[in-house]
Amino acid sequence: MADKKVEAITSMEEDFAQWYTDVVVKADLTGYTSVKGFMVLKPAGYAIWELIQKQLDARFKETGVENVYLPMLIPEGLLQKEKDHVEGFAPEVAWVTHGGLNELQEKLCVRPTSETLFCDFYQKDITSYRDLPKVYNQWCSVVRWEKETRPFLRSREFLWQEGHTAHATAEEAQERTIQMLNVYADFCEQILAIPVVKGQKTEKEKFAGAVATYTIEALMHDGKALQSGTSHNFGDGFAKAFGVQYTDKDNQLKYVHQTSWGVTTRLIGAIIMVHGDNNGLKLPPMVAPTQVMIVPIQQKKEGVLEKAEELRERLSSVARVKVDATDKSPGFKFAECEMRGIPVRVEVGPRDIENNQCVVVRRDTGEKITVNMDELESTVAELLVTIQKDMLEAAREHRDTHTYTAKNWDEFKDIVENKPGFIKAMWCGETECEENIKAETGATTRCMPFEQEQITDTCVCCGKPAKKMVYFGRAY
Amino acid sequence: MADKKVEAITSMEEDFAQWYTDVVVKADLTGYTSVKGFMVLKPAGYAIWELIQKQLDARFKETGVENVYLPMLIPEGLLQKEKDHVEGFAPEVAWVTHGGLNELQEKLCVRPTSETLFCDFYQKDITSYRDLPKVYNQWCSVVRWEKETRPFLRSREFLWQEGHTAHATAEEAQERTIQMLNVYADFCEQILAIPVVKGQKTEKEKFAGAVATYTIEALMHDGKALQSGTSHNFGDGFAKAFGVQYTDKDNQLKYVHQTSWGVTTRLIGAIIMVHGDNNGLKLPPMVAPTQVMIVPIQQKKEGVLEKAEELRERLSSVARVKVDATDKSPGFKFAECEMRGIPVRVEVGPRDIENNQCVVVRRDTGEKITVNMDELESTVAELLVTIQKDMLEAAREHRDTHTYTAKNWDEFKDIVENKPGFIKAMWCGETECEENIKAETGATTRCMPFEQEQITDTCVCCGKPAKKMVYFGRAY
Repeated sequence: MADKKVEAITSMEEDFAQWYTDVVVKADLTGYTSVKGFMVLKPAGYAIWELIQKQLDARFKETGVENVYLPMLIPEGLLQKEKDHVEGFAPEVAWVTHGGLNELQEKLCVRPTSETLFCDFYQKDITSYRDLPKVYNQWCSVVRWEKETRPFLRSREFLWQEGHTAHATAEEAQERTIQMLNVYADFCEQILAIPVVKGQKTEKEKFAGAVATYTIEALMHDGKALQSGTSHNFGDGFAKAFGVQYTDKDNQLKYVHQTSWGVTTRLIGAIIMVHGDNNGLKLPPMVAPTQVMIVPIQQKKEGVLEKAEELRERLSSVARVKVDATDKSPGFKFAECEMRGIPVRVEVGPRDIENNQCVVVRRDTGEKITVNMDELESTVAELLVTIQKDMLEAAREHRDTHTYTAKNWDEFKDIVENKPGFIKAMWCGETECEENIKAETGATTRCMPFEQEQITDTCVCCGKPAKKMVYFGRAY
Repeated sequence: MADKKVEAITSMEEDFAQWYTDVVVKADLTGYTSVKGFMVLKPAGYAIWELIQKQLDARFKETGVENVYLPMLIPEGLLQKEKDHVEGFAPEVAWVTHGGLNELQEKLCVRPTSETLFCDFYQKDITSYRDLPKVYNQWCSVVRWEKETRPFLRSREFLWQEGHTAHATAEEAQERTIQMLNVYADFCEQILAIPVVKGQKTEKEKFAGAVATYTIEALMHDGKALQSGTSHNFGDGFAKAFGVQYTDKDNQLKYVHQTSWGVTTRLIGAIIMVHGDNNGLKLPPMVAPTQVMIVPIQQKKEGVLEKAEELRERLSSVARVKVDATDKSPGFKFAECEMRGIPVRVEVGPRDIENNQCVVVRRDTGEKITVNMDELESTVAELLVTIQKDMLEAAREHRDTHTYTAKNWDEFKDIVENKPGFIKAMWCGETECEENIKAETGATTRCMPFEQEQITDTCVCCGKPAKKMVYFGRAY
């Protein structure tokens, strides 16, 4: 039965997309619904999101963020106030046209993002420099009418947080934009064990209505990039469109400067594709709803279940721990623990009890350790820290060994075709070159990283003088 | 300035509805939007909801509840599957008719509640008795196209949790229905300091599609009732409509038995109307985002702000505490603390520092205590417990002294007219009498309480033999 379970997954080398879908389903993260393009987040999937939310929210609050909740519907007139923004989002929103039994005078879209609502709110709520800064965030769901959907990566509805801030000065807005990008980057590394590249999006790739968009880009196991979080500086563009003004200390009426920043349930997709293997999901301990699963061996023998329960009780002071006392075979339970990505498995049977020991198995490396039962708490506590660290290192090594440098167009094409990963290359700054590169290779500009290098002097595509080193890659 | 702030509130004796609106606005709980009938939950309001959510969610999880997330949109065909349910909700839903640039083949409503989605999901997810019970819950927002709206009490969108469970037997479903009602009742008493009456709704008042609806009913300061949480037993009605079946141990295909239960941001309205006074909001410490506000006196004098900060640091181990170091006057700050309902105010000025003491003021009673600074942590910690307890007792006393008994129709009418509160009276069980009572007095059946009393033998309205003692009242 254990084999059967594992057999049911396509191997990632054979078909990565199918492997991904198999893991999502077999690890019980999402479920299907009769609502086309929408998914159910099942308990195992939602619990990961709860852990992300809790830990990210605490980091937000340390920087002074306050949570609010704004309406889920946006009147058409409000959406249209900022020209670039409406062009970016209007083609992909869902429209409410009837309320109760009546047709609405003005149709409302389900929020695809809430810049316009925050501007409308700030316009009413901000009058003086004393009201600034506003550093608000909301946790909610948004709807975007995508044509093709994939669990976590692209869905007609997804959960996210969206921070929206208003500041007295351009400098302060820029500072907050970068501050939140750094919060995201640290969070990905320390909590999700995912190393990211921080940088700025090109003009072509920036958010509709933004002056500048910053991003964190992660590399998946198959060598494709995943945009994992973005932070936007809006300057005073939205403020001018919505009339968000304040009276400054000098008694002058001025426009505020705004930012927004968000991460989504897409992060769960990143966890799957960065850490997973052919046995299933691998959860970093910091976001594992169950960190330790105790599997009793020969559980019908006297004292085994009692001992398992005793260990659970003891371990609960250092970890989120459960006992699998179902009537499945141990082999099936092992495979299930692996499929669900539980970081540590503890096996305890009659012989272990006799020897006052148990077997501890790491999900990330498969390593088995025999542990003296008296030392179980400290061993498991240390092991969780080690696994978290090692998973980050493994992901970093994969990322680094799959980051290539292309000095010219031939090298670029060769890498795209034969070595999936990030490509660092020089760029002239022209959108035309970006478009050509995308058309010919499918690779897009992921970001202009903060850490610039001088690879050559000329654009990898057109040969004209280069302005920036860029990370390219095929992306989700 | 302090006076000005307080003056701005209508007194509750003069106009309770206006007093309520004034408190909501002045305590900065909600804001207006350009989206008609929708509100913004501002930081002070949302933070109360976060504390409710955190503490209620922990209680749910202790009973085995798991959180999930289902789509926010429901296809029309799905909504129509259960006849009573669609009749109850169809007139008040918002319809999405267009996705992106195209008209949808089937229109979708924004969820007013998610029974139909959970049934659809359970129908796919449940096959065997091994899959039962399912005890799922989601935290989300829902939309109901109300004609008249009031902050927290009735709004076109509100935040809530909705639990939806599926069980093998009718007994287990009934047990869960009552278990969750008890969770709500305990939560209201222990966390919100609001005593409630537990009971069953009449046929007329029960939820669309339910076999039985149970409710907790609270009494507001003005003597009106507020339905504060409900728990429904659906029997196998929804299961039959949606084909939610499982194979039992005896290999027979059987229908599941379902429940649902929910509380909403309406609870914040209850907190305001049960505890508030003419100085503003009064928050029970357990749901006060700021439990203690330290107000420095003569803060420009040397050492005052430093001492205030030192006390904040010390108190942060026992309470959620802030210092108000703004340039407002102490009187203004006092009034603001009261308006926002902060349970404890600590005043510290040069003379206090000299005497190694500070003044501690209770929001609930106004009592001032001079406290030795060395004992501040223990005094404040104890005081918060005392305030929480005293607020429940005060609310209970108000509820009890405003609960009346009507033995006959004349008494009933007299009480409704002259003594706002709960009315306990006997009822024959006929909907006609309920409707007559409502038409003539505006009072509705709040519930048939679990704790029955035998007041008389006959229905207070028609004089026929009585079946149940009922709580009546005018309600929000």
